[in-house]
Amino acid sequence: MADWLTSLKTDTPQEGFELAITLSRKGVGYTQTSPDVREKLRADYAESADSLTMASQVIAIHYQTVAAANNYWK
Amino acid sequence: MADWLTSLKTDTPQEGFELAITLSRKGVGYTQTSPDVREKLRADYAESADSLTMASQVIAIHYQTVAAANNYWK
Amino acid sequence: MADWLTSLKTDTPQEGFELAITLSRKGVGYTQTSPDVREKLRADYAESADSLTMASQVIAIHYQTVAAANNYWK
Amino acid sequence: MADWLTSLKTDTPQEGFELAITLSRKGVGYTQTSPDVREKLRADYAESADSLTMASQVIAIHYQTVAAANNYWK
Amino acid sequence: MADWLTSLKTDTPQEGFELAITLSRKGVGYTQTSPDVREKLRADYAESADSLTMASQVIAIHYQTVAAANNYWK
Amino acid sequence: MADWLTSLKTDTPQEGFELAITLSRKGVGYTQTSPDVREKLRADYAESADSLTMASQVIAIHYQTVAAANNYWK
Repeated sequence: MADWLTSLKTDTPQEGFELAITLSRKGVGYTQTSPDVREKLRADYAESADSLTMASQVIAIHYQTVAAANNYWK
Repeated sequence: MADWLTSLKTDTPQEGFELAITLSRKGVGYTQTSPDVREKLRADYAESADSLTMASQVIAIHYQTVAAANNYWK
Repeated sequence: MADWLTSLKTDTPQEGFELAITLSRKGVGYTQTSPDVREKLRADYAESADSLTMASQVIAIHYQTVAAANNYWK
Repeated sequence: MADWLTSLKTDTPQEGFELAITLSRKGVGYTQTSPDVREKLRADYAESADSLTMASQVIAIHYQTVAAANNYWK
Repeated sequence: MADWLTSLKTDTPQEGFELAITLSRKGVGYTQTSPDVREKLRADYAESADSLTMASQVIAIHYQTVAAANNYWK
Repeated sequence: MADWLTSLKTDTPQEGFELAITLSRKGVGYTQTSPDVREKLRADYAESADSLTMASQVIAIHYQTVAAANNYWK
């Protein structure tokens, strides 16, 4: 796969959050490599509260990593 | 998306908890961008014990991050 | 919401555990604000092994935070 | 509730693991306070692979806390 | 239960991973003490993708602990 | 099992992410040792949004470990 992640450093906590979202999606993308299938699945789970909560949880876990990497933007 | 997160610092542990709630909801909001759909889904999961527990878990994970960022308000 | 959390410090590991329970319940309470609905839901999930395990998991995550805040009561 | 947890320190990693099990069960016991109901539920989930995995996960999370409290028994 | 865990130290990251697997299984074994029942359940969940993912998650959590105990084998 | 993990160090955050994927799959592989069964299961769960999210979560947990082992590639 082409380079998509060269650093965990971000300028702001919000950019770090968005990086956490990217990491979450990449975790899916390495397993389901078809963008078409992913798009179809997204349409489904975006209508399910529990699926959205689960997705939010993965983001939360990655955000712990990104925040630590940035020393919590202190 | 407009700026919504400029710092993980809060004055008190309770404000930190409320920030963790915001982070949890943002994790959903980046995936399901329609406020109307989110509102409809919330009506459903607020009546399900397991859905509420799952939501509480995401808050707990984010609270770890926020608490660390604030040195546990020591 | 009124003040309910002014410190993560507790005198003992057990009080810290009880604070973790409070945090878990607050994570639910901010989403489902009706005490009556929460009471009804609790009656249900208290009879489900998996629901209880999920609730115990949220407590465990919060307990990590509380324990760290207290330097593990060393 | 009577005192049941005065310290997170244990002599060995194995005793720490057993403390993590205690913490997991206490997380359930504070919610479902009836020992009879808990006993009945345990009979069920002990026959379900997924329920056992979920219970093992809560133990794993608490074990992180106990291990850190003991400086990993280094 | 007889001694089965005297140290979290391992010689290599791979042995640490295998220790994490042992810890995951012990978390099950303390709850379902019958080896026969565990063997039967394993036959089931080894054919379920989600059950295997859940088991892999418990290993991941324990691996965090083991890796920290070994200072990440630096 | 043959050696497959001699170090948690990687040159870049992206290689670390790919190592986290390997660790996640190994967690499955130690339980379901048949590559044929794993292949069949993968075909199923790659079409399920929730299964993919769960798999992404395991990667996220391992990535915390790998990132810490690499001092977040600072």
